[in-house]
Parts: sequence; C-alpha cells; structure tokens
Amino acid sequence: MNRTKIAQLYADAESLGGQTVTVAGWIKSVRDMKNFGFVTLNDGSCFRDLQVVMNREALDNYDEIAHQNVSAALICTGTVKLTPDAPQPFELSATSIEVEGVSAPDYPLQKKRATVEFLRTQQHLRPRTNLFRAVFRIRSVAAAAIHRFFQEQGFVYVNTPIITTSDCEGAGEMFRVTTLDPKNPPLTESGEVDWSQDFFGKHASLTVSGQLNAENFAMAFGDVYTFGPTFRAENSNTTRHAAEFWMIEPEMAFADLNDYMDNAEAMLKYVLKDVMATCPDELNMLNKFVDKGLIERLDHVANSDFARVTYTEAVEILEQAVAAGHQFDYPVSWGIDLQTEHERFLTEEHFKRPTFVTDYPAEIKAFYMRMNDDGKTVAAADCLVPGIGEIIGGSQREERLDLLEARIKDLGMNPEQYKYYLDLRRYGSCKHAGYGLGFERLVMYLTGVGNIRDVLPHPRTVGNADF
Amino acid sequence: MNRTKIAQLYADAESLGGQTVTVAGWIKSVRDMKNFGFVTLNDGSCFRDLQVVMNREALDNYDEIAHQNVSAALICTGTVKLTPDAPQPFELSATSIEVEGVSAPDYPLQKKRATVEFLRTQQHLRPRTNLFRAVFRIRSVAAAAIHRFFQEQGFVYVNTPIITTSDCEGAGEMFRVTTLDPKNPPLTESGEVDWSQDFFGKHASLTVSGQLNAENFAMAFGDVYTFGPTFRAENSNTTRHAAEFWMIEPEMAFADLNDYMDNAEAMLKYVLKDVMATCPDELNMLNKFVDKGLIERLDHVANSDFARVTYTEAVEILEQAVAAGHQFDYPVSWGIDLQTEHERFLTEEHFKRPTFVTDYPAEIKAFYMRMNDDGKTVAAADCLVPGIGEIIGGSQREERLDLLEARIKDLGMNPEQYKYYLDLRRYGSCKHAGYGLGFERLVMYLTGVGNIRDVLPHPRTVGNADF
Repeated sequence: MNRTKIAQLYADAESLGGQTVTVAGWIKSVRDMKNFGFVTLNDGSCFRDLQVVMNREALDNYDEIAHQNVSAALICTGTVKLTPDAPQPFELSATSIEVEGVSAPDYPLQKKRATVEFLRTQQHLRPRTNLFRAVFRIRSVAAAAIHRFFQEQGFVYVNTPIITTSDCEGAGEMFRVTTLDPKNPPLTESGEVDWSQDFFGKHASLTVSGQLNAENFAMAFGDVYTFGPTFRAENSNTTRHAAEFWMIEPEMAFADLNDYMDNAEAMLKYVLKDVMATCPDELNMLNKFVDKGLIERLDHVANSDFARVTYTEAVEILEQAVAAGHQFDYPVSWGIDLQTEHERFLTEEHFKRPTFVTDYPAEIKAFYMRMNDDGKTVAAADCLVPGIGEIIGGSQREERLDLLEARIKDLGMNPEQYKYYLDLRRYGSCKHAGYGLGFERLVMYLTGVGNIRDVLPHPRTVGNADF
Repeated sequence: MNRTKIAQLYADAESLGGQTVTVAGWIKSVRDMKNFGFVTLNDGSCFRDLQVVMNREALDNYDEIAHQNVSAALICTGTVKLTPDAPQPFELSATSIEVEGVSAPDYPLQKKRATVEFLRTQQHLRPRTNLFRAVFRIRSVAAAAIHRFFQEQGFVYVNTPIITTSDCEGAGEMFRVTTLDPKNPPLTESGEVDWSQDFFGKHASLTVSGQLNAENFAMAFGDVYTFGPTFRAENSNTTRHAAEFWMIEPEMAFADLNDYMDNAEAMLKYVLKDVMATCPDELNMLNKFVDKGLIERLDHVANSDFARVTYTEAVEILEQAVAAGHQFDYPVSWGIDLQTEHERFLTEEHFKRPTFVTDYPAEIKAFYMRMNDDGKTVAAADCLVPGIGEIIGGSQREERLDLLEARIKDLGMNPEQYKYYLDLRRYGSCKHAGYGLGFERLVMYLTGVGNIRDVLPHPRTVGNADF
C-alpha cells in the first residue's frame, strides 16, 4: 500500500494539492448529510485530523462508510483539495474508502468527553484520545531530546542494571526479584530463607537508582548518563508517586556542583524548547483544556536564568515569610527537610522561576555527597520548578577516600558492601558530580497533567499493575 | 576549570596549535627519561589518547608526576604542539601538571593485557580498558542511532511496563516481583500463597516483552517503538543469553510482513553506517584485536540487499546441502525449529549476507502471528546475520478477531486474559506488523565480541548479579 501519512499532508500540503493520495487511519467522527458526508480521520502521525469528504455519487459503499462507528479503521483514497477559506487548510475528496476494520458499537470511548479516572480503566484505548495523544507524543519527543542533548555533548549512554543484589543504593524500599518457590522456599540450617539457592545465588531486588553504577563509567568515559526504569516499593498513593518510573542520571567527571547545575539548566531548557518547537498542536490543546498557564510557563522557564540560593539563605527567606504572616503547615527552621509547600513558595512566590537550592545539611542528605568545608553542609543541589516543586536532585560526590570511608562508618553502614564504590576513590579519584531527573515529573511539567498515572503508558502503583 | 576535552583537541587540532589548554584525564602510562618524560592520558571523550610531554625544567613537581601509577587522575595545562612527522598529530607540552587523584599501586588493571574473564571480576574498572572503552561507546552510539532512526520516521517511543501481572507474554520463564514476607507469606484459606496481599494485589513478574502493550499504542499512533529492558529467568549458561537484556520492539499499523522487513533492513543499515562513521578508531581496534573480519563484514552488510527466503525453501536448501554431504548435528525436515547451525549455514554459506526466513510453520511460532492462506504457516520472519544467527524476530500480527480467538482457544489459553488484546481487534483492527531486536545481540554483531557478558555494563546471568 503506497500510503501517505497525515503528518506528511500537513507538511507538504501545497505541493500535494490536486494530487491523489491514500491515507489510512481511524474514525474520530462521521457526519452523514444524506448525499454527502464528512469523516474526521486520525492516523496518529500527528495531532491534527484529516477531513475526508465523501459523496454518495462517488462512492458505491457510501452507506457502509456513513454507518461506521467511532474508531473503525479506514483506508481512504482521494484528491487533496486546498481549502484556504476553511478552518482546515485542505481536505481529502474521497474517490474510494475501504473499511479495514470495523469498530463494535460498544466502543468505550465515544465522542463525549470521558474523565481521566475512567480512562485509566481503558489504558489500552486511551492513547486514542486527544489528551493522551498529546501526552504520549510529548513524552516521546522529550525522551528523544534528552538523548540528543547528552549525545551532542559527548556523553556516553550507559544501561545500568535493573536487577541488583546490593542494598547500598539507599533510597526507599525495594521489590524482591526471585524464582524461589513462594510457598516453601528453601531454608538454611538456622531456618532463614536460603537465598544462595535463588536464581542469582543471592537476594536480589529491583534497582532504585543507577547512580553508583554510572559512576563506574564516569571514571572511564568522563561524562555518562543513564535513562531507564527505576522502582520504589513505597506504599504511597499520591498523584506524584509510581512504583515504576523512568530516571535520567547523568554523571560527570572533573565537574563540581556548579558544573552539574549548569548542565541541568541547559538540559531542561533544551528539552523545553524542543518540545515547544515540535509539538505546538499538542501544547495548544493542553493549554486550552488542561492547564491554562502551560505555554506561558514553559516559555518563561526556557528563557529565564534559574535562581541559585543556599539552603541556609532559603530557610531565612522562609522564616521571613513566616514573620510576614505566611502560613506553612510544617514549621521552618535550619535543619529541616524542605517540604513541597516550602519548595513551591521559593520557586513560585519568591523567585518566580526555577530555583536551585544548594548546600543542604549533611544529616538530611545521602552518604555519597561531598562534605563542604564548614563540616555541616554538603555540596548538594535540588532544582525546584514552579507548579511541581523538586524535579532534579543532584550533588557533587565525595571524592576523598578517607572522608567517604569515615562517613560510611559514621552512618553504621557496612564498608565491605561499598568496596567497588570506594575503589573508584582508590584508583584515580577525581572531583565529580551528577544528578537524577525523574522523567515522569518532567512530562507532568511539560504537559500540565497533574497525576503521574496519566503520563505513564501503563502505570504501576500500589494495588495496580493491570494491562 | 576551563577544560578542553581530548576529543575536541582531535577535532580542532589545526586551530589549537600553539594555544594553551587544560586537559583532565587518567594515566594510561608514564615514561620517565630522567630529564623529560611522556604521559599517555585518556579522558574518555574519545578512544584516542593524548601524549603529554613533560620536562624537568618546566615542572617543579616532575618527580611526583613521573612516579604516578596507572589510572591516576591528572590535570595538565600546556601548549598544543602540532607534530606532523610523529605517529600522533599533536602533543601537549606541559607547563603544569596537577595530581587530582592518585592511584594505589595495587591497581588491578596494570598495563599487561588482562583476560576478559578476569575483567568480568572487575566490572567497575573494566570500562577503562581499550576493549571496553570501544564496546561501551559503540553500545551508546548504536542506541542513539536507533532512537534517531525511529524518531526521524515519526515513530513514537513508548515505555511499556517492566512489571507485569499478565502471564500472556508467552516466551520463557519469568522472575517474580514481590514484597511479601519471603519466609512466611500470607496464605489463602486453601493454603496457597495469597497474592492479593502482595504490593500490586496480584502475582507480578518482570516482563519478557513489551509487544502486546506496544500494540495498544500502535493502534493510536500508527508507528511506535519500545527500547527497554526485558527479562528471562532461564537457567541457561551460554555466551548469548543473559537474564536481563535490552530490546527494541517496533510496531507498525497498516503494515504487513514486507513492511516490517523493509523497516528492519533499513534500521540495521542505518545503525551500521552510523557506528562506522562515528567510531572508526573503536572499530579499527576491534578489527585488529577481537575479530579480524569485523569491518569488512559490517561494510558488506551495510551495502547488501538482504536475502528473503521462505521457511519451506530454506528447508529445501538445507536438505540439498545434506544430500551434497554437509553434516548438521540436528536433522532437517519441514516442521523443525531451525537450529543456530542451520541459520548460520543459510546466512553464512548459502546466501552470504543477512537473510530473512519467512512463513514458518504455525506450530513453532507464537499465537499472535497471522495465519497465512495455506492454513499451516504464519506470516513470521526472522532475520539471520552472518556470525550471529538470529538477530531479529518479527511477524505480521493476526488482526482478524475470529481467527485470533480461535487460535487462543486451540492452544488452551485463557481468552479472558487476552481481553485487552482482543479489544484491539474489536475496535478498529487493522493489518499490522512488528519485530523485536535484541540490543545486546546487535552490539555483539557491531563489535565482534563473542560473549554477551562483555557487551552489558553489569551483566546478570544465572548465579551472577554482582556490582
């Protein structure tokens, strides 16, 4: 079949005017005016639909087509007619229409608008709606832009492992990965589960971060990044948490905290600009129906310098706000972990643009972050953005073997488990920094969609892993 | 630090001649000639090293540098000197060298060549060797080329889920994903493990394929692809199998078997040409030390039309070979699953180029493949390449609801489990096709490396999931 995609028609309409083309797609609506009618067809190649005009005279099977249900698949051949005075720049005047696949009358997504909650029960069909067509194309375009950004800068893409036998990744609860008999697992003499008989000969879990592995590669390639799934077995049923989500984790050798922030800011702007240039139709729809301030906000962020403020200064700003009468649910004082309300106040009300908060108290941050000279803060920085709060977390890593060993011991962790990680400090250690970007958070930010369940193709949350 | 990467020096050597630059990297070797010496430095930005020339007169800390161990990290400032008569086009004449991080004398990868088996025990350090520097850069370049190929063609990238509660993916044994107490799992009244109390409220596993989910999106976007990790809990300790590996699974609406083969052939050639253009130094090294025919083979494949032969014809070719005296371990007759020896004979000895074998007996292929009009073969095609055997498997999918339902029942499968998949045939079904490319197989093919453990950053195989 010599088929033309609708995206191509929009790209080349001028030169295709008067030409005969064949288009294949799915019905969004049919209007039958008895002797002529209109089919709105979408083939997924772009957000826009094609208007197909059919005439009873020209089509033997006019009635068959006029009675098709929403989402039936059609193959339409006809002439491209430029329509400079109509809302759409051209239409297809059909000379033949073939039904490739009918759609049963009980098709669950009829024309009337469905709620996102209902659509979550129709995950196999919801990509056919305008909302999810927009969200999942933007997700794809953003992913491609991220790869392009890092590749253009010479970063090496590393697929860090999903299954891990180390417990040293720190953050959060982990899913167990096993092939042992679930009911009668083999036991050791002391009556514990005998993991040595499991598939990997050890207790294994799903990774919560590829960072420590990425560092292995940064010490060889200089600049690397991961882009893959990560997992949290947390029983938290919020709009921002999923059990399975994708992360981008760049890691840069011979780089400090400022280098990380410069890179992260450039990356976010690159992705924003790319999505705005590539997906104007999708963004217009989202701006109209999902989040009225979306385009203005993206535009603003793409063209603002991000603010940078130390944690200590940020706490002072928050304390001044409290003194001036602002109410927070959680009290503010030096040493606290900033809550989302604090983060949003800083980025939305105080700085009114994306904001890096730097140099957090060591106690509330991970063991691998570099101790500052003050002995109480670490070279960490979180990037907060209006409308979301934290979107990136990163730090300069502790490159000094003695300090890193001391920190591991102080925290009661087992140095033996960190042998490989410490080896990186034994053999040619260097200043280095890295960060983690939660990809779904970014897609939520790019689309204005407020629930992580609606930016994941098939979301996995506590109690839910259907489809 | 205003740092120049070595890749940039090689790209802009002419214009940088005479300029002062600062380079940061790791020592590959140091030669001390008493009053002058040479440091071979690599910073991971490209395969090539930088020769740093140091003079006792110019450097206060000459002896400190001359005594550094392999893999120490240095920051070198100096003048770029073009050396048109030397093996390398330029060198850095150092005015200052700073030790960023020493390397302990017991660094496990000294200059002498280590075996790949030993290097597998040093996965955190092996990216620093020439072999793995080449392999993992090619892996990254190939991944980026794959994304670029599909994005340029308007495919939408879909992150299909890693955790699945469906057993309907078919292929192979699966890993269980659970948070239940491993020793005393909750039991139902009938004494079975009560999966309803597990994290997802069901028994969950790691995916073996994203295809069925990708089809959901192909029926909305037309052309989509996945690129993510997949898993097999198979107890097979071979050079070609890993428990965790990455797959690319494109799925195309309004496409038949030929469309899939055209797309797959174009994709493979695109990736080969991109890697050959981007990684000549890496390929030269691999061609010299790993696989002497590598470059010739890649070049041949990038410029050959792939052969296409039906399974029935292929069996005839094999039977003729047997008649002519060729010995196979496994007997040949219509209906057998082709063994690697058969595949390699076809692609290496008979066709001498990549070969699609099409239209396999239905009995040896998956339920979702489209039944041919002969009622006994299906519209499947495997792509065989010289040196590897099967690298791609794909098919046209059964789009006819009645035939698909009948097949599911015939095979004793539970239609209820396939409700969503069957819905795609109820609501606007269309001809469609797709395929799966094992990414590690491709990287093995691109590098000539014979063991899958050496193309995965941190391989997971039965009994092994360290690092």
